[in-house]
Amino acid sequence: MSGIKVAVIGGGSSYTPELIDGFIKRAAELPAAEICLVDIPAGEEKLRIVSQLARRMVAAAGLNIRVTATLDRRQALQGAGFVVTQLRVGGLAARAQDERFPLKYGVLGQETTGPGGLAKALRTIPVMLDICRDISELCPEAWLINFTNPAGLITETVLEYTRVKCIGLCNVPIHLKMTIAKLLDADAGDIFIDFAGLNHLVWGRKVWCKGQDVTDAVLAKLQDGAALSMKNVPDLKWDKDFLNSLGMVPCPYHRYYYMTDTILAEELAAAAPDGAGTRAEIVQEVEKRLFDRYQEPELTHKPAELEKRGGAYYSDAAVSLISAIYNDKREIHTVNTVNNGTIAGLPADCVIEANCVVGRTGARPLTIGELPPEIAGLIQHVKAYERLAIEAGVSGSRHKALQALANHPLVPSAGVAKLLLDELLTINAEYLPQFAL
Amino acid sequence: MSGIKVAVIGGGSSYTPELIDGFIKRAAELPAAEICLVDIPAGEEKLRIVSQLARRMVAAAGLNIRVTATLDRRQALQGAGFVVTQLRVGGLAARAQDERFPLKYGVLGQETTGPGGLAKALRTIPVMLDICRDISELCPEAWLINFTNPAGLITETVLEYTRVKCIGLCNVPIHLKMTIAKLLDADAGDIFIDFAGLNHLVWGRKVWCKGQDVTDAVLAKLQDGAALSMKNVPDLKWDKDFLNSLGMVPCPYHRYYYMTDTILAEELAAAAPDGAGTRAEIVQEVEKRLFDRYQEPELTHKPAELEKRGGAYYSDAAVSLISAIYNDKREIHTVNTVNNGTIAGLPADCVIEANCVVGRTGARPLTIGELPPEIAGLIQHVKAYERLAIEAGVSGSRHKALQALANHPLVPSAGVAKLLLDELLTINAEYLPQFAL
Amino acid sequence: MSGIKVAVIGGGSSYTPELIDGFIKRAAELPAAEICLVDIPAGEEKLRIVSQLARRMVAAAGLNIRVTATLDRRQALQGAGFVVTQLRVGGLAARAQDERFPLKYGVLGQETTGPGGLAKALRTIPVMLDICRDISELCPEAWLINFTNPAGLITETVLEYTRVKCIGLCNVPIHLKMTIAKLLDADAGDIFIDFAGLNHLVWGRKVWCKGQDVTDAVLAKLQDGAALSMKNVPDLKWDKDFLNSLGMVPCPYHRYYYMTDTILAEELAAAAPDGAGTRAEIVQEVEKRLFDRYQEPELTHKPAELEKRGGAYYSDAAVSLISAIYNDKREIHTVNTVNNGTIAGLPADCVIEANCVVGRTGARPLTIGELPPEIAGLIQHVKAYERLAIEAGVSGSRHKALQALANHPLVPSAGVAKLLLDELLTINAEYLPQFAL
Amino acid sequence: MSGIKVAVIGGGSSYTPELIDGFIKRAAELPAAEICLVDIPAGEEKLRIVSQLARRMVAAAGLNIRVTATLDRRQALQGAGFVVTQLRVGGLAARAQDERFPLKYGVLGQETTGPGGLAKALRTIPVMLDICRDISELCPEAWLINFTNPAGLITETVLEYTRVKCIGLCNVPIHLKMTIAKLLDADAGDIFIDFAGLNHLVWGRKVWCKGQDVTDAVLAKLQDGAALSMKNVPDLKWDKDFLNSLGMVPCPYHRYYYMTDTILAEELAAAAPDGAGTRAEIVQEVEKRLFDRYQEPELTHKPAELEKRGGAYYSDAAVSLISAIYNDKREIHTVNTVNNGTIAGLPADCVIEANCVVGRTGARPLTIGELPPEIAGLIQHVKAYERLAIEAGVSGSRHKALQALANHPLVPSAGVAKLLLDELLTINAEYLPQFAL
Repeated sequence: MSGIKVAVIGGGSSYTPELIDGFIKRAAELPAAEICLVDIPAGEEKLRIVSQLARRMVAAAGLNIRVTATLDRRQALQGAGFVVTQLRVGGLAARAQDERFPLKYGVLGQETTGPGGLAKALRTIPVMLDICRDISELCPEAWLINFTNPAGLITETVLEYTRVKCIGLCNVPIHLKMTIAKLLDADAGDIFIDFAGLNHLVWGRKVWCKGQDVTDAVLAKLQDGAALSMKNVPDLKWDKDFLNSLGMVPCPYHRYYYMTDTILAEELAAAAPDGAGTRAEIVQEVEKRLFDRYQEPELTHKPAELEKRGGAYYSDAAVSLISAIYNDKREIHTVNTVNNGTIAGLPADCVIEANCVVGRTGARPLTIGELPPEIAGLIQHVKAYERLAIEAGVSGSRHKALQALANHPLVPSAGVAKLLLDELLTINAEYLPQFAL
Repeated sequence: MSGIKVAVIGGGSSYTPELIDGFIKRAAELPAAEICLVDIPAGEEKLRIVSQLARRMVAAAGLNIRVTATLDRRQALQGAGFVVTQLRVGGLAARAQDERFPLKYGVLGQETTGPGGLAKALRTIPVMLDICRDISELCPEAWLINFTNPAGLITETVLEYTRVKCIGLCNVPIHLKMTIAKLLDADAGDIFIDFAGLNHLVWGRKVWCKGQDVTDAVLAKLQDGAALSMKNVPDLKWDKDFLNSLGMVPCPYHRYYYMTDTILAEELAAAAPDGAGTRAEIVQEVEKRLFDRYQEPELTHKPAELEKRGGAYYSDAAVSLISAIYNDKREIHTVNTVNNGTIAGLPADCVIEANCVVGRTGARPLTIGELPPEIAGLIQHVKAYERLAIEAGVSGSRHKALQALANHPLVPSAGVAKLLLDELLTINAEYLPQFAL
Repeated sequence: MSGIKVAVIGGGSSYTPELIDGFIKRAAELPAAEICLVDIPAGEEKLRIVSQLARRMVAAAGLNIRVTATLDRRQALQGAGFVVTQLRVGGLAARAQDERFPLKYGVLGQETTGPGGLAKALRTIPVMLDICRDISELCPEAWLINFTNPAGLITETVLEYTRVKCIGLCNVPIHLKMTIAKLLDADAGDIFIDFAGLNHLVWGRKVWCKGQDVTDAVLAKLQDGAALSMKNVPDLKWDKDFLNSLGMVPCPYHRYYYMTDTILAEELAAAAPDGAGTRAEIVQEVEKRLFDRYQEPELTHKPAELEKRGGAYYSDAAVSLISAIYNDKREIHTVNTVNNGTIAGLPADCVIEANCVVGRTGARPLTIGELPPEIAGLIQHVKAYERLAIEAGVSGSRHKALQALANHPLVPSAGVAKLLLDELLTINAEYLPQFAL
Repeated sequence: MSGIKVAVIGGGSSYTPELIDGFIKRAAELPAAEICLVDIPAGEEKLRIVSQLARRMVAAAGLNIRVTATLDRRQALQGAGFVVTQLRVGGLAARAQDERFPLKYGVLGQETTGPGGLAKALRTIPVMLDICRDISELCPEAWLINFTNPAGLITETVLEYTRVKCIGLCNVPIHLKMTIAKLLDADAGDIFIDFAGLNHLVWGRKVWCKGQDVTDAVLAKLQDGAALSMKNVPDLKWDKDFLNSLGMVPCPYHRYYYMTDTILAEELAAAAPDGAGTRAEIVQEVEKRLFDRYQEPELTHKPAELEKRGGAYYSDAAVSLISAIYNDKREIHTVNTVNNGTIAGLPADCVIEANCVVGRTGARPLTIGELPPEIAGLIQHVKAYERLAIEAGVSGSRHKALQALANHPLVPSAGVAKLLLDELLTINAEYLPQFAL
């Protein structure tokens, strides 16, 4: 058997068919011998359903990729050339909690930033460090493609505290690129966006189409009602004056920072007894239907419904990244990697999201330099939060966790930070061994 | 006539007797030949009262300092060795406005930070640049000691856009030092505080008493109810957990960032029809009584009532700074000057507040290096706001002003920023020539 | 007529057929409508010969590129999309002087570094600034591809003192890549070299072949006698211990720094009355024969003899760079561009030589970060020399020129620097208007 | 018994009476209870002589300082508050070797820089790390005042590889200050020099007298023949043009870099069979006479002859530094400490020589920022050498040692570096355990 082994941790995820689809589409350039889906016992049923669908998809494509499924992570890692992490500690139930508990204190609930994002980070860090210990032992040369949110923060944790080779990946940049191509009626290959920032806090500083600066045209389209949003983010319209004064393309997740009040109001309405429920609660419904669909024996392709779930272009982002590494393509991908002086004013060893040349030796950012104050301060503030969150997540220090929250731009005061932290630690206790006495 | 000439712009201020008192106390080391108080026509009456009191004070001290008063700024600057700026564009009425208008939008009102601080900055910048043009022409070798708020931002404007030699001064650091000395029952001369930050956003990273690290003792005292506040800042108690997790001494103005919600509630109550009024409104009353007192012919000393006004230790800070320059003392003062690499992660040409060695060649900071994330992010975020505010104030760009507000940690969203900016520009229009079409 | 106009300044150079060959080879992707060769009156005869050969080459290739020749630089620049500078102020006679005069003082003579390189820089800077003034007026959107040595220093001058869009190009990196490919019997496309440094002072920190680190193999080959040299640089063998301790691939020009004594001895022997003459003197002979050859009417291709001249792969480097810009290829070229934080410990605004992604918006370096001390110090020292040389060349300051020489690692003392400078200024006086009183 | 214990390692040095004199002069402010002189067995006789003289000096001063002498370093360190290192591994014989062996290869011989300095560094590092291990165990709170050369490099080793609190001290800055005061006929207290650089490579960027910039006057005096040299450095006159172009005050040791050829010629002459001998050889004679003198029972003061030895103002520099720490004076001393961003373009964790505020918490540099290219490149080059030398000294890596020499500005080629290294390692083998197999 020749070809690489890819281990997918959190393999029972509803996103997996998307990933499988990506490997099928790129089979010619990326010879996958085995895709090993691994999950925890609680996900066994989903893992079974997804792996069976995956096998049907591969068979329908006439390919010779072995899809395996296991609950034994160490077995999955053995011999892997790439490890993809798409796990969610605590599942959608924990996400629903992340989205709800801050609302009580007048703070918006979101799974990747704010108090909800901190909760997710603190739950995920111990698991991720555990996985990395296994990788270091079982497949030390493997590349870890981390898709687990908060993707930048988790990638920084891995690169700071382990020796695992890791690139953090998010579909926001590719989503922006594809959406902008559509807005401009252009070919995505002709679009180049000068990305700079952090994960879920990345701006397109300039947009070029065939080498022409089309930033203003893109900003004008955005003001005309073009949404540029994503399934996981409320579809609020951007203010014309604000966009013009910014002069750069925000990412969908920037709404949480620039439209905090409006989103909070929407979330409160959705979370009310008569509301539509939080995003996680909606996603739980979507997932239920998706898994029903996945079980239909005649289904041999990624179903159209998957797109409602979010994560569009995930397969493109992930599998083309793996191919760029495997084939030493030295082409540009927008990923999360070590700053190393790319962006002035951020620590050299922190993780940023930026355009990188990716090849067999990993991801190397294109130099950025000084950022304009329009975006520098917010990035630096959130990065300080992230570093405190990482310290808290690794050490279990309540002090660091309190400072993380008090330093988060979405948290209005140290007093509220303290209340949020108390609740966060209580309701997530089962997932936070590092904070146990 | 030998000795220096000191020009005091905004000389009719109620603070002036404090400053005069400082010159009297240091007459032995600092030979002032003339203190020239200058003000605008609207301040003529106050100027008359204050200058007469000043003359009585000097006479009572048996000193030979000539106190002059004029409405002609150019005449005041002619031959000056030091220029002290303590002006307030728009007077206390404008300050009262700064404190009130943000409240409508659920944002706290404060004269040196947030939307109120931006209003003050935008009003002050054109006047300050005008003064600097005069200094460059009439007394180019003079040192400008800027006490006008927002003191750091205004100092950065002067150093970035003019060639005037300028040091920004604030009484917060000296106030902290004196208060901590009292808390510890120690001599102020034995206390050394490792200050780092920006004006009104400065932390004491460590406190030393006779070379012993007493930071924890100070933090414990603060938790025990010791206020460490100032006349201009609400006297709210610091939370124990928060202080312990911070591990550094905040300045009184940090309450606006760490206790935003509580302060907003207090301000809303005070600003209500049945409330006590905003700080500016209270100060207006204090000032009225002060000026009545100043007119009493038998008053020949700084009256005790002045202390209620705020600005304690102003004379100590200002006159000892002037003396350090004049006498080339090369002693340590905590002032606002160019970063120049002192604090990593901030632009080299921005202004910081830090411990500096001060002598005839100016202020040179003691190296600081990397700041911990507990304070780095907030500093960087506020600095980005300040730089946008400066650009807006100098250029009259509405875009920059909107970005300044949208980037301020106290402003909850870009939408609110826009509403605040509209009102700010409207109600301050007479003082904002740079924004006129 | 569609397609771009390329102006070649120094168009009468013997290198021009190399360049024309490059345009012919890439005609499919790069539609050149006109290549305008421009030279000074002293070069008229060469210009005539070269332009006629160029026309024969284009005709033989069956292409529709108009080759024009002129002594009017402004006419040549009118409408140009690309400007290539390959001029040599003072011609080979000046180069011969550059190579000889330092020898008297026991310092090696070289046209791009040391005292000879300074002479060339000081002669070239005023001419280059003049050209840039014309570009700014006549074709402000044109890209200047600077091949004129010292290429990095000249590019830095252009980027620091003009608004012309400029990329500095040298054939050293491509030469290293092609040579290493041959050494390894590999395809050049499979080789990736992690270049870092300055022009003529660039190291391959790692060499990868198909994503495998082959640095040690390359170093071993170099020790086994493989020359890795270039026509313009003496072919001295690298010491095994030294290479192993360096652990990186030096460029051919590093011999001037690492083998200073040996090269000096060789140069002194060559320059002796019975010696072979300096490189420039040999090149003068080669050139004479080349131009005889160029005049043969039946010659319709770049003659093989051209390779002896040096400048191998020049056409590949130059025309593929132009094509990368024109076609917005965003592929990696090793060029000279602004540091902007790419290499830590060098000024943000200085020019470095590094791997860059090149597209229509120019060249953007891949982040490098901290350099190891094995190469950092020498790079920083030479950069300091370069900056002093630029200041001297622009301002005509004798002080800066003296400091430039005194700071050059190849100049043994300030005393020798002074003697060298005196002679340099005297013998180059006709080309140094900026130093005239 | 109250007061501090000072351990002097290398206590048998001829400099010790200088140090004792310093403690006597500052007895009022610095209560030394015990000065413990410690040396190695080979120095026992000198130790005896010096300690007896020291006791006579203390007695004559009527002071109650206990002077003890021991060969047991651990006993000396027990309970010490300050440790002064003034040791010389291999003694003057090794220094004589350092001064001679490079001459064979046409390289100047000097004990603190170049190949001789590297030899000294490699001999000293293992001993120093050993001492630091003892300090960490026996008196972890003690301050190590390192006077052992190369003082900057050794201090960097201590601060990088141990947890010992260390300040590096050299008498060059104080010597410059005292000499300049004499040149200007001014009081030393009125002189302030803006020092920046590395140990033995420090420039006075500006000189101020009573706050007036007198740099030009000082430079003029230096050109007029004023030597500004030191006992250990040849007294060569500075060139007028060179000084004017530099615009800064070089330190005496700069002659090795700026007058390399002249010094080499002088050294070669001195080292010739009929020459005067190297500096170490002369010093050996001086020392012999000094120790004869020290033994005279009636001698109860530091003898005038000591001044010929070099090290003038050593006591002032050392004891006033200790007093500044002990008394938390927060006054300015020019010492070697961690860069931490003080000088841009140097690593944050390297050691520089700069003006520092010194108090009980150590030495904190005054911010410097970007250096001009006139001095930046040389500093950076020498720092790269130092870092390689430290790596070599700690690890015993021949590769690092070879790179250190090849990167030293005084070594003309990698080939010569290799020859020098071979001889260095051979003749110093007994002192280089880290390089033994």
